Amino acid sequence: MEKEKYTSGVLQYIPFFYVMWSDDLLSYSEISVVKKAIKQDDTLTKQDYNYLIKFLDRNTPPAYEELKHWKNVISNSKIKLIESDTYPLATFSQKMICHHFEDCPFNPYLKDIEINLGIQPNHYNHLFDIEIVKETTSDFYNATELDTLLKGEHAVVVDTFREVLRHPIFKWDIKRDKEEFRAHVLKQVEFLGEKGYGAMAFSEAYGGIDDMPAYAAVFENMMYVDGSMAIKFGVQFGLFGGSIQKLGTKIHHDAYLSDTGKAKLLGCFAMTETGHGSNVRGIKTTATYDAETDSIIIHTPGKNDNKEYIGNALHSTKASVFAQLIVDGKNHGVHAILVTIRDANHKLTPGVTIEDNGYKLGLNGVDNGKIWFNQVRVPRANLLNKYGDITPEGTYHSDIENPSKRFFTMLGTLVGGRICVARAGLGGAKKALAIAVKHALKRRQFNDSIKIQEDLLMDYPSHQLRLTPAIASCYVYDVTLTHMMKVYSDKTITDKRKIETQAAGLKSIVTWFANDTIQECREACGGKGYLLENQIADLKSDVDIFTTFEGDNHVLLQLAAKGVLSDFKSEFNSAGFSAVLKLLSSRLGDTLSTFNPVYTNNVDKDHLYSSKFHKDAFDYRTRRLTYTIAMRIRDYVKKGIPSYQAFLKVQTHLLALGKAYSIELAYTTFVDFTANIKDEKNKALFEKLGTLFALNELRKDASWFLEQGYISGSKSKAIRNRVERLSTELRPHIGALIDGFGIPDHCMAAPIAK
Amino acid sequence: MEKEKYTSGVLQYIPFFYVMWSDDLLSYSEISVVKKAIKQDDTLTKQDYNYLIKFLDRNTPPAYEELKHWKNVISNSKIKLIESDTYPLATFSQKMICHHFEDCPFNPYLKDIEINLGIQPNHYNHLFDIEIVKETTSDFYNATELDTLLKGEHAVVVDTFREVLRHPIFKWDIKRDKEEFRAHVLKQVEFLGEKGYGAMAFSEAYGGIDDMPAYAAVFENMMYVDGSMAIKFGVQFGLFGGSIQKLGTKIHHDAYLSDTGKAKLLGCFAMTETGHGSNVRGIKTTATYDAETDSIIIHTPGKNDNKEYIGNALHSTKASVFAQLIVDGKNHGVHAILVTIRDANHKLTPGVTIEDNGYKLGLNGVDNGKIWFNQVRVPRANLLNKYGDITPEGTYHSDIENPSKRFFTMLGTLVGGRICVARAGLGGAKKALAIAVKHALKRRQFNDSIKIQEDLLMDYPSHQLRLTPAIASCYVYDVTLTHMMKVYSDKTITDKRKIETQAAGLKSIVTWFANDTIQECREACGGKGYLLENQIADLKSDVDIFTTFEGDNHVLLQLAAKGVLSDFKSEFNSAGFSAVLKLLSSRLGDTLSTFNPVYTNNVDKDHLYSSKFHKDAFDYRTRRLTYTIAMRIRDYVKKGIPSYQAFLKVQTHLLALGKAYSIELAYTTFVDFTANIKDEKNKALFEKLGTLFALNELRKDASWFLEQGYISGSKSKAIRNRVERLSTELRPHIGALIDGFGIPDHCMAAPIAK
Repeated sequence: MEKEKYTSGVLQYIPFFYVMWSDDLLSYSEISVVKKAIKQDDTLTKQDYNYLIKFLDRNTPPAYEELKHWKNVISNSKIKLIESDTYPLATFSQKMICHHFEDCPFNPYLKDIEINLGIQPNHYNHLFDIEIVKETTSDFYNATELDTLLKGEHAVVVDTFREVLRHPIFKWDIKRDKEEFRAHVLKQVEFLGEKGYGAMAFSEAYGGIDDMPAYAAVFENMMYVDGSMAIKFGVQFGLFGGSIQKLGTKIHHDAYLSDTGKAKLLGCFAMTETGHGSNVRGIKTTATYDAETDSIIIHTPGKNDNKEYIGNALHSTKASVFAQLIVDGKNHGVHAILVTIRDANHKLTPGVTIEDNGYKLGLNGVDNGKIWFNQVRVPRANLLNKYGDITPEGTYHSDIENPSKRFFTMLGTLVGGRICVARAGLGGAKKALAIAVKHALKRRQFNDSIKIQEDLLMDYPSHQLRLTPAIASCYVYDVTLTHMMKVYSDKTITDKRKIETQAAGLKSIVTWFANDTIQECREACGGKGYLLENQIADLKSDVDIFTTFEGDNHVLLQLAAKGVLSDFKSEFNSAGFSAVLKLLSSRLGDTLSTFNPVYTNNVDKDHLYSSKFHKDAFDYRTRRLTYTIAMRIRDYVKKGIPSYQAFLKVQTHLLALGKAYSIELAYTTFVDFTANIKDEKNKALFEKLGTLFALNELRKDASWFLEQGYISGSKSKAIRNRVERLSTELRPHIGALIDGFGIPDHCMAAPIAK
Repeated sequence: MEKEKYTSGVLQYIPFFYVMWSDDLLSYSEISVVKKAIKQDDTLTKQDYNYLIKFLDRNTPPAYEELKHWKNVISNSKIKLIESDTYPLATFSQKMICHHFEDCPFNPYLKDIEINLGIQPNHYNHLFDIEIVKETTSDFYNATELDTLLKGEHAVVVDTFREVLRHPIFKWDIKRDKEEFRAHVLKQVEFLGEKGYGAMAFSEAYGGIDDMPAYAAVFENMMYVDGSMAIKFGVQFGLFGGSIQKLGTKIHHDAYLSDTGKAKLLGCFAMTETGHGSNVRGIKTTATYDAETDSIIIHTPGKNDNKEYIGNALHSTKASVFAQLIVDGKNHGVHAILVTIRDANHKLTPGVTIEDNGYKLGLNGVDNGKIWFNQVRVPRANLLNKYGDITPEGTYHSDIENPSKRFFTMLGTLVGGRICVARAGLGGAKKALAIAVKHALKRRQFNDSIKIQEDLLMDYPSHQLRLTPAIASCYVYDVTLTHMMKVYSDKTITDKRKIETQAAGLKSIVTWFANDTIQECREACGGKGYLLENQIADLKSDVDIFTTFEGDNHVLLQLAAKGVLSDFKSEFNSAGFSAVLKLLSSRLGDTLSTFNPVYTNNVDKDHLYSSKFHKDAFDYRTRRLTYTIAMRIRDYVKKGIPSYQAFLKVQTHLLALGKAYSIELAYTTFVDFTANIKDEKNKALFEKLGTLFALNELRKDASWFLEQGYISGSKSKAIRNRVERLSTELRPHIGALIDGFGIPDHCMAAPIAK
């Protein structure tokens, strides 16, 4: 066949073949897609088929001359490429045929290839010298549908709340002076309290709807207004209100819960101490029962034993104070006691000293302070006595006899706060991404001195790689945290230990993810991102502390890892720890025997995109890390090293396990969610997002998988390439993905995002 | 031999053997160290020797029972471990012998093992149940000597400057209001100008000492006071002053340089435009020569063509304006022209509009603004005419005929600024590390509910791993940047292209490193790090923008990579590009043939710590990336894809090359420096820092080396373990290392660092 005289059958495939080969897009399963199409395509003669089939062998790619010729054929056609066509390349091909031949029907097989190979205009529009009718983003997906999927059962509550945010009180502005800022945030919190949002998690008797999951969903949306507002809200209603609700009993509920939910009673949550950051058990503040006066005396023994960093400390009249409860000379461990810290005139009560913590990197609208107590006396009834009480006779009583178990039961009630912090971090990441993407869809950047047309920032592969995997992660974490909160709030599940482990791990990885993402967005917007008016800077400074508060991430990850370890132990409790290790090791042995080259070298698209591969890999990582830690600890202990020291020695290993476990948890939760999406189009999109998340996570930890021999070098490269390619494939839909976060326009104040 | 009755010869080795085996510290070269010692040790009988030697085989480690027994022997001795002893373990061993035997001389062979194995008290002090006399940090190294090594030939200038910083004007304070902040920073800059620091890089005729390297050394120290001060100083003297000095001629020098150096004349550097971030060549501001009036008319054509983010814009009376120079209707490309923007009363001159950029994430003491010009007329003499001039006859003339070469020559003069930005970033990282380490050497953290004694934060392995490699990197980058600035300022080197490539790459990796490090320090200090009073928060916000200004890091890294690529091309210019590729590929082939298992599996300490291994690995990475990029580009071009598009397609690959090249450059520079250190003790320390830097960099990119088969899985793990171990080994000296940065006490205002 002469090159210059292609039949219409062959000609229609030329743009496809050129795109596929010039970008080297073909793995074996992708070749089979094309083969299948040309086999079924009845517009092709036997001769056409033979001509085409010989270019579908990875071992003998078309010669450079062939490719150049194809390119000229395309370029000379002078057809415009319309990016907004539903199937731009198939349509382009059809037009080429129509240019040369009278008969030129739309070929459905071409459309199939275009869909199945995920070929996007941004893959190829620069390969031809043809005119391109560009658009910045596609409307193939409906952002409202994506938003609806994420909101799930909270759609009505969230949508209503987003409308509430139209009120002028939520209008964003730069605030530098902390007093002014705090006063404004206080007004916002009071406004939200009046509207009923503070009481959402309380029962109806106290003005609420008894819906903690809905509270969390709304909470994330507060980040779209301001970080300080969200955090002060969380302190007032979630921590202070939550302590009364969960640690107190009816007498406290009746007395305080309604007013707390309406923000008529402002309170703080006085747990952390200066000298004892993450060591709640070791706090020094004492609550000594004085039988004579039937009261409890709250006291700060040493200079550095003050309560530290207490949010709402400057506005509150009451505090839930965590202290060592001493009854009749005996310490019964940490309990919470309600203390009035200010009188009706907002004067400090006798014995209470409060100092402003001063300016912080962010969250300057939150009034953090230090609190000292000097022999402050409160009635016995102020003890929040759900898990431990002092009888009228002056003796201590608790239904939970084991002090350790009692302590962890009390603290377990705070797990909801960790999920909320993760949600708030996620909200920050989403907003930063929305700003960065909207900017990148407008901003043009020079490429080269010669080129006249400057490209959109969003069209750069490196820019796509910076932002797109993070967007996919937002979808995964959103679904995961919603699910987590649902399980946590499920009253039929009484043993919350598992969810505590999970919340600890997820809080860590999500808040770190949020920080990394916001930083990437700041840099992706260049100097514009550095201006406060563009809102990313505040998000960065506000979200920063999320990695540290409500539990330091390093501490929480170790907590999660220890949870995983003890799960393994208890799972095989009857058999003993060594039996567990043996079993686990034989299981890993099984897996290892599946490390045949066919698996470790499999770089085919169908394999790399299958959730089975991702799940297997994540599962292997978690189990392998669990096993090796257990082995190391056992080895140390056998050598006579105390187990506490052994744990210290495997600290970095524990952190790795905590992360691995949390990533796996997030991914499997997301896959389960996706499986239940009814609409096929959106389901396919969510699957793609899950794949991008999974491959990106595997890429980040590729060195570990390579070390284990779980993947080969070529597979590792293939994973990296697929991450880049998926990021590019999602480019046309990036606008829809960002809008799918549902951030109200009235919260997007950044000029660069307009 | 009965276990209970060790000879004194054996007994003295028990603590060593226990430490070595319980922590699994032994690689083959380390075993040979111990073997050599016991072979030479004449205090040992033949029987002692035989007993000991059998515990020096990695294949048959001592049984758990043996280890437990050793531990009991040590624990039961009731000897105190004194961490401050010069050789704590050898001394401890000696005391154990003295407890049981009359004759107990100090054994020098034990000392040798202690040194050569890098055994530190923090490796083992938790292994025994003995009393430990702890100290937070060792004085084995002298911080002043380390500081002196880093300062090099600038010691006097830097020390004098550090004394100048005692002046109350440099006292740090929280500043929230930008007007107040800017006014204060202006005073500081004027003060420094009066003291002669602004003119340092200028010649003596204009009040300077013609010493750009000393200027850069001093500049880094400004970060210890305040980021805004450093940046405003850099804008006034480095950018504005530098533009007059380097782009102007004697007439400009005589007229402005002295006053500029003293900050009597304030100026700004008006290059960047809103619409054209990193594309200086494509700026739109015009400078049109009007022959009739013999003047140049500066004009901003469009709304978004204004100068953007111009530092000093609100205080300046003059600006170096970069604009397209049009003479007789012909555009001669970008030139700089001095424009008076304010009159003697600080009123804007006619046609000039300036807007405040407003609040930023950081650097709010710098007055950034936007500038528009509406037909502003200046005399012809205001053209900074070193590289391009307008003759009195009104024709354009330049000695550099090629406009592209002319442009890059002019821009090349700004490379010094990039090195200074990297230095400033480094200064920020150092200060953050100093604060975080000083905090971690005071702060105690709970480990476990049972333990009474809380450990210092700095004693946690994870904390050591977070901070120590970053400290090593500071030493490496300090030495590298000092060297870079020296080469850049060397007037005997006229072709500065290479140093431009290098500065672009180093600026990127160092500013990113600085940001990551400051973030790590913030988190490492928990909530305390979040308070502005503790100074890390401001460093974080100030240094953040360093990744974006003076060239966006992504753009600069690609610039660096392209420099590497064109070096390769030009190196073999006569032979042609394909010949280069062939040669390069055969070279890599050679290297690949050395990928025998003995090399890729070598996990021995001597190998892992040898600079040859590090250099080979870095060199291989750079060359391999260069080769594969060149191949990919060639492949695309052969397929008919324009080379500009081909470069876009390999963008992420280029970024990897830019980083790889810069890391290699930094490491080799540091190794050369270390080789010339006279004092053996400090030399050994610097070698260890270099090793930690190199292994940490290899660890970070382990997936790449694993993919290539350059290292095996076990070698990758060994590298990771060595990074952790070196971080632990340096723990006793971390105080000295931090003090070696030479940050004056009067600049350490953070309460947590007191």
